[in-house]
Amino acid sequence: MVSLRGKLSSILPDTLWIIKPENRRYLSGFKAGDPQLTESSGSLLINEANSLLITDSRYIIEARKESIDFDVVTIKNGLMEEFPYLLSRIGAIKLGFEEDYLTWDLHRQLTKKLKEKSLPVRMTPLKGLVDRMREVKDSYEIKTMAASAGLMSKILAEVIDDMKPGRTEAEIAWQIEGMAREAGAEDLAFPSIVASGPNSALPHAVPTKRKIRSGEPVILDVGVKLDGYSCDMTRTVFLGTAPPKFKKIYRIVRRAQLAALEKIRPGIESTVPDSAARELIADAGFGDCFRHALGHGVGMATHEDPRLGPRKPVILQEGMVVTVEPGIYIPGRGGVRLEEMVVIEKGGPRILTKDDHFYHF
Amino acid sequence: MVSLRGKLSSILPDTLWIIKPENRRYLSGFKAGDPQLTESSGSLLINEANSLLITDSRYIIEARKESIDFDVVTIKNGLMEEFPYLLSRIGAIKLGFEEDYLTWDLHRQLTKKLKEKSLPVRMTPLKGLVDRMREVKDSYEIKTMAASAGLMSKILAEVIDDMKPGRTEAEIAWQIEGMAREAGAEDLAFPSIVASGPNSALPHAVPTKRKIRSGEPVILDVGVKLDGYSCDMTRTVFLGTAPPKFKKIYRIVRRAQLAALEKIRPGIESTVPDSAARELIADAGFGDCFRHALGHGVGMATHEDPRLGPRKPVILQEGMVVTVEPGIYIPGRGGVRLEEMVVIEKGGPRILTKDDHFYHF
Repeated sequence: MVSLRGKLSSILPDTLWIIKPENRRYLSGFKAGDPQLTESSGSLLINEANSLLITDSRYIIEARKESIDFDVVTIKNGLMEEFPYLLSRIGAIKLGFEEDYLTWDLHRQLTKKLKEKSLPVRMTPLKGLVDRMREVKDSYEIKTMAASAGLMSKILAEVIDDMKPGRTEAEIAWQIEGMAREAGAEDLAFPSIVASGPNSALPHAVPTKRKIRSGEPVILDVGVKLDGYSCDMTRTVFLGTAPPKFKKIYRIVRRAQLAALEKIRPGIESTVPDSAARELIADAGFGDCFRHALGHGVGMATHEDPRLGPRKPVILQEGMVVTVEPGIYIPGRGGVRLEEMVVIEKGGPRILTKDDHFYHF
Repeated sequence: MVSLRGKLSSILPDTLWIIKPENRRYLSGFKAGDPQLTESSGSLLINEANSLLITDSRYIIEARKESIDFDVVTIKNGLMEEFPYLLSRIGAIKLGFEEDYLTWDLHRQLTKKLKEKSLPVRMTPLKGLVDRMREVKDSYEIKTMAASAGLMSKILAEVIDDMKPGRTEAEIAWQIEGMAREAGAEDLAFPSIVASGPNSALPHAVPTKRKIRSGEPVILDVGVKLDGYSCDMTRTVFLGTAPPKFKKIYRIVRRAQLAALEKIRPGIESTVPDSAARELIADAGFGDCFRHALGHGVGMATHEDPRLGPRKPVILQEGMVVTVEPGIYIPGRGGVRLEEMVVIEKGGPRILTKDDHFYHF
């Protein structure tokens, strides 16, 4: 639960309507995700005098237990029927909404209802107000994310030490999931990527029944969720001897990663570390083969702001947690990606993904 | 791939923009989900002369392999920069969009871009055009869903026969997931519910470390995804002897389920089976304890239209696949829910969840 009221007074809307699951949990502690992309488990309605958690009969018991600072309101006849009355009851005038999550249709329905009932409520986009609060982590959050990354690092180290030719990508992915669950992770942060040989050229490969062979790259891109916070890390592993071509690629990617890490500190633009890695890779002749951004923020969502890419610069701040993950991918052959998750401190980045499975080719 | 062009001519928009993951896969075969609620892996743009799958560099290889009827277009500089040109290139005039999935902000951005570039494209809500097509399954889909439900039924039967007091809810959930993966399921259709004792009173309980005891209800609500199609089923199990109170509740829920199933056939309103179950439960004195709708459509999404609830009647049709899942929940004590997934045929419902773990109390 974060001190929101202070922030509220400085922006325009007098009432916030929070529907994005991560923002909802961040502000209220309500853990439920949305069961389906188009299905909500609840929303928050917050103003100077009220903190309401609006949900339905399926979630009342959990809501009361998890969100003690909120009054739980149960919707019985459809949100759009009852929501206008709630707005009226708490005296909302300018209702801030998450424009990057609310669908066009729900916005239209609500606007129509407000008009029908002649309620003087105007809707105004929040422009990432809560998302921006989430970008900078406090000490409790950093501790939790360090624990999340620590757990993942420990599991990944064991899995890598245990890898043998002949095991399939899917088996290894499954082993990771089992170990994460047994260690008390809430969930995976995202479906694990275990991509071997030519599959490692696909940045978002889904684990297959392909058996891992000696001398080929295996990309392991994994993360767990612990107490609501994700982590994200990648190692590229060779069983047996790596071919010279991939040794070279590995060296370049690792150097690009270290070059990017060196640039990360509070006050610089988010494009700077990306450029450092990208230029190094381009100078080595693989400019076309690094086809994604350098990294992204991590927190309650696995992918969140700030983005560390070539476009849309923002200023990096102390307390942000970001990934640094350059890669080189040769279609049909394979790829190498290395990813660390770091917290930005005064003096520079502190690596949270504590695992030393790096080659010194 | 479904014959869409025929349907297209009869509705207003000349071009469809498809962003909802299930609709995208239904029309194109492109399997990737959206990695995060606010992150798209691609969209379709379809008109009389064009079938485009718009994605980014992460997904090109999979897209070309999975969506052979579509031309794959790779976005390099952000969708909102390049999309207007695509619309112009294919001569879109009236662009249909999924208003229940497109965010308010993306709609605003696109409208603004179109205006800036003076493109004569108007945006118009599709009002569930593709979702409605998905409601009625063809014979291939029904076969796939029967296989999906058959796999789940077999796994659940083994799990129930294997259940012993002292095992935790989380262990059993984990056993189900492992068996599903090993049997070749693409994924779980949703996180399994294994809810014992008082937890069984929570319709959406998350499995805990609570040990299952003799003589208490255990609700198992589970589903897998096979070749893109979900299934959904629930059994309530007692280890040892069920207490008389829960025997009575079980009898009522089972009778309510059978009463609802008897009403299901093409041509009736979707509220009729719900009423049959609800009235039976109310007459038995548990009216307040059945706190959700009777059922829902299942397909590429686990929850989709038609809804079988007390409101918003639609006409049931041959080829629809729906769940029938009444329940009675006593807060603090426990609950009973029984769920079948059926395909609606001319003569009535055919049950796809082939498992006989029902009590005859």
